[in-house]
Amino acid sequence: MLSITDKTFIEKSFPVWDKLNEDEKKLFLNNTKVASYKKGDIIFKNDSECLGLIIIKSGKLRTFMMSEEGREITLYRLETDDICVLSASCVIYQITFDSFIEAEKNSEIFILNVNTFSKLFEQNIYFSNFVLSNATERFSDVMWTMQQILFMNIDKRLAIFLIDESNKSDSLKLNITHEQIAKYIGSSREVISRMLNYFQKQKYIKLFRGGLLITNKDKLKELIKN
Amino acid sequence: MLSITDKTFIEKSFPVWDKLNEDEKKLFLNNTKVASYKKGDIIFKNDSECLGLIIIKSGKLRTFMMSEEGREITLYRLETDDICVLSASCVIYQITFDSFIEAEKNSEIFILNVNTFSKLFEQNIYFSNFVLSNATERFSDVMWTMQQILFMNIDKRLAIFLIDESNKSDSLKLNITHEQIAKYIGSSREVISRMLNYFQKQKYIKLFRGGLLITNKDKLKELIKN
Repeated sequence: MLSITDKTFIEKSFPVWDKLNEDEKKLFLNNTKVASYKKGDIIFKNDSECLGLIIIKSGKLRTFMMSEEGREITLYRLETDDICVLSASCVIYQITFDSFIEAEKNSEIFILNVNTFSKLFEQNIYFSNFVLSNATERFSDVMWTMQQILFMNIDKRLAIFLIDESNKSDSLKLNITHEQIAKYIGSSREVISRMLNYFQKQKYIKLFRGGLLITNKDKLKELIKN
Repeated sequence: MLSITDKTFIEKSFPVWDKLNEDEKKLFLNNTKVASYKKGDIIFKNDSECLGLIIIKSGKLRTFMMSEEGREITLYRLETDDICVLSASCVIYQITFDSFIEAEKNSEIFILNVNTFSKLFEQNIYFSNFVLSNATERFSDVMWTMQQILFMNIDKRLAIFLIDESNKSDSLKLNITHEQIAKYIGSSREVISRMLNYFQKQKYIKLFRGGLLITNKDKLKELIKN
């Protein structure tokens, strides 16, 4: 059973809560449990099981894809209040690709079980609308990243640039704006900013106002070799 | 102005037509035009313009992404009755990556202009639900393909296998099932079937019951080099 604090948390976090009728709200709360995961735990593999909708109570989750050789690509991260529909993908017939979710920190999450999720997805148009909107937004973001990696080699070009600059200045700290990097690489500021954010998510670098710090030069070097 | 035949076509093709009220139906029809494109015409580039929702009346469209060097990857194809929401992506804030649409044959299409699309997307939940569902499904499919290319190298492994087999038998026609290919490559039948379908879409091969015909061996060889 959820505590009153937990119930309030869910009511505030779920964007279309007001669009559920009283029965649906009860159904939602009665079929949601709290689960704890330790840092490093795999919460979900979508080829083997079906979990349901996740709301993050505390901690941090990471969603990723994995190659046969174990190479990972981070899709996105989820923090307190965020909602993840990927873990319910088994009942969203529109979603068919493989993904994983792991706890990046010790985390507590709410899980709405998959039968109830499925029921609400079928019967409440606002609920399904929210789920599809969430999925479209996440996928679009991921597709942008994959497009850059697959086509533009912006990841490699950026990695080469950062390593060269670091070698030249003999420092891991680079005082250079996204605008300047874009000019040097011959790309747009928007593309460079998004790729820098992606590098930060992957923990290769740390961004600060007016520059960046290379936190994992070896990983950047690996990028170039691929 | 649309002809009565055109109106009937739209009413039948648009999946949630019945969920629009009379005013919305009129708005839809009054703001839809027919446009003709010749084979090879670019109908849409999403970095430069906004078109609206497309319903294919006749012909065939192809959606694709393009690299800076002009390399293309086909996302999916659209034929009579199909609906494309990518061309309205400027008003779907969830969609942010770049894509193109071209006429692969001489085509006639209906275009619901972007202002009306936007209005219906905002005010009618069934309309937006259909749009997001369509987008989620297409993206999920595309992500699957990108994942295989990016991670698994299944495209390369399959290309190598097909070329080897073709050389061994000195024939472009291979009598081999998807199941058998999967076994040889060490993958699953489902993965191989989807990648073979992707190869067929790219016109590298033509599938038939119990086998396949290599129609562009040079393109398959190029795949291996990348």
